[in-house]
Amino acid sequence: MSETNSLLEAYKQTKFQLAGHGKRDVQILKEALQAYEGHQESDIYGKGKIIEDFQSKMATFLGKEAAVFFPSGTMAQQIALRIWCDEKNLKKVAYHPLSHLEIHEEDGLKKLHQIETILLGEKSRIIELDDVINIHEEIACLLLELPQREIGGQLPDYKTLEEISIYCRGKGIKLHLDGARLLEILPYYQKSAEEVCSLFDSVYVSVYKGIGGIAGAILAGDQEFTEKSKVWKRRHGGDLISLYPYIISADYYFEQRFQKMAQYHEEAKELAGLYNMCEMISTMPIKPVSNMFHVHFNAPIEKVKSILVGIFNETGIGLTSYLRETSEEACHYEVSMGDLYSSVPKGKVKQVFAMLNQRMKDI
Amino acid sequence: MSETNSLLEAYKQTKFQLAGHGKRDVQILKEALQAYEGHQESDIYGKGKIIEDFQSKMATFLGKEAAVFFPSGTMAQQIALRIWCDEKNLKKVAYHPLSHLEIHEEDGLKKLHQIETILLGEKSRIIELDDVINIHEEIACLLLELPQREIGGQLPDYKTLEEISIYCRGKGIKLHLDGARLLEILPYYQKSAEEVCSLFDSVYVSVYKGIGGIAGAILAGDQEFTEKSKVWKRRHGGDLISLYPYIISADYYFEQRFQKMAQYHEEAKELAGLYNMCEMISTMPIKPVSNMFHVHFNAPIEKVKSILVGIFNETGIGLTSYLRETSEEACHYEVSMGDLYSSVPKGKVKQVFAMLNQRMKDI
Repeated sequence: MSETNSLLEAYKQTKFQLAGHGKRDVQILKEALQAYEGHQESDIYGKGKIIEDFQSKMATFLGKEAAVFFPSGTMAQQIALRIWCDEKNLKKVAYHPLSHLEIHEEDGLKKLHQIETILLGEKSRIIELDDVINIHEEIACLLLELPQREIGGQLPDYKTLEEISIYCRGKGIKLHLDGARLLEILPYYQKSAEEVCSLFDSVYVSVYKGIGGIAGAILAGDQEFTEKSKVWKRRHGGDLISLYPYIISADYYFEQRFQKMAQYHEEAKELAGLYNMCEMISTMPIKPVSNMFHVHFNAPIEKVKSILVGIFNETGIGLTSYLRETSEEACHYEVSMGDLYSSVPKGKVKQVFAMLNQRMKDI
Repeated sequence: MSETNSLLEAYKQTKFQLAGHGKRDVQILKEALQAYEGHQESDIYGKGKIIEDFQSKMATFLGKEAAVFFPSGTMAQQIALRIWCDEKNLKKVAYHPLSHLEIHEEDGLKKLHQIETILLGEKSRIIELDDVINIHEEIACLLLELPQREIGGQLPDYKTLEEISIYCRGKGIKLHLDGARLLEILPYYQKSAEEVCSLFDSVYVSVYKGIGGIAGAILAGDQEFTEKSKVWKRRHGGDLISLYPYIISADYYFEQRFQKMAQYHEEAKELAGLYNMCEMISTMPIKPVSNMFHVHFNAPIEKVKSILVGIFNETGIGLTSYLRETSEEACHYEVSMGDLYSSVPKGKVKQVFAMLNQRMKDI
């Protein structure tokens, strides 16, 4: 076993894990299919009951005219921005410096669509109204990611969102929602998906994060927009003859989990609280606004790794499968709450954090 | 029931169908998963046992250094051409006027990659060596589709293929194989996949045509090429967190069917022979060179439809689910042989073609 993987291996051996829905294994698909009749016909290139029913269900849920199922959010969002750029005949958009499109997509937006980007605000904080007002170039579209994942899942005030929406409409700037984790923020805002989406012209939602499906995304907007998105979906190679394995599982886990987001949020606040009581550990945000947060250790990665491996082995409880170096003296990881947390005995959880606190003190 | 769909509805009611592997329903996935252990971990963004094992199996099968699993052939092939264009710093390729990229992809190659295309030869026939020699512009890549699907699945002589390959290598033109139906032509050429692929720099193979999987494609070539293709796969939005539903079923049905291609080819010749004995009906090609052919009727579509619906209802045997108008006086459809043909009683087949011949005479 290599040193690098020892944390992952120790994590895999634990009996309980505090974050997530559990292993991403084939059983997830098997379970979703179990209730499904084998004679149900496949979707064929975007047509058929399986895909049309789910799309119209999601359109209703999001309060949009229409929705399209995509194999990935990467594809869906590039296409959304392309459509808005083409409409305005201006290939320029703005988003956060740590947007998924900027750091995780190998520059697909630029290489495939020749769209220029303006990085708004600063890496370390969310976009505010002033950032938007201070854009001194014309743009076709502003993309907001709610919550801002790379900084632990932070959110603007709802009032700020409304103001940005009004401002953009006034200026003829399309507003696109990167709602990969849209469902996960609804309990904090105390709003319906429809209310949040009404502020945006187009919306992307992932089906495999809080929902816990296998892969896939929904892109929603008005009919003209979604029809155009289907043409681009074909161009990208995303108009698969059959998408049903993803759709069936998306629908199955959506039904199981869309009403559990408030529970995940409460649990995220509870767990973040436990982390924040430990020496040299803090969470970002301090008080989570969704099911996610980042855990920051003010200590070198190798020391933290060795403490975590020890705790996993001794208690049978896993906190994380990986650690990332923030600097020579700090490291961090991401936590997203799911089905698992509620099944871990509370006493065990307390024991783990008492140990973690003690060992961080002893560094 | 609308008039337009009456053929499809009658087809769906038949007990036996002569072409294909059977219905594209959810059972196809359920069956492939049945033998699969639930605890097997998902592939994660192109990594993991499920995807790596299948990719390396396909690389070996095709005789290439490496292979990459893609969600679709549309994505895989645009990317292959883009890589070859970038390598030569020349955005120009050549292919058949009825190439999938030209007529079925909403111009993705042009809209996403700004690649110019030269349409080689004529719509009604396959590309010959002279067509290649007579290209008077420099091109980065030539794409050959084997068999040429839109004209019934036709093939050049193997010698022509070898000559085109030698010519392209001499001229520094990359040769890409659209082998959506590569396995299906091996019995006719009496060659291994490896032998055919050795003539090409890059190869795409579909996993849901003759193989009968759910969706997906393999792109193979040398290591440098496939590594680049993974970067473009991410840009296109095809680097899904989990592709295993497609990979597991591709592997399952590959094992079941890759040795049945000779059977499908023999059956295609037999069935084409039966069609060709009917009045005003001919197949393209007359003698199939793969598992596929087109059936052409020298009669107006409405008359043919009414004859077919009658025969389906009376015999319980379905020949096709659709008809396409060729001209006011002619129509056609495509036939691809699969698992179903061998289970239809021979006597029933003869009866159907006797009826078809008689009714075409009586028009």
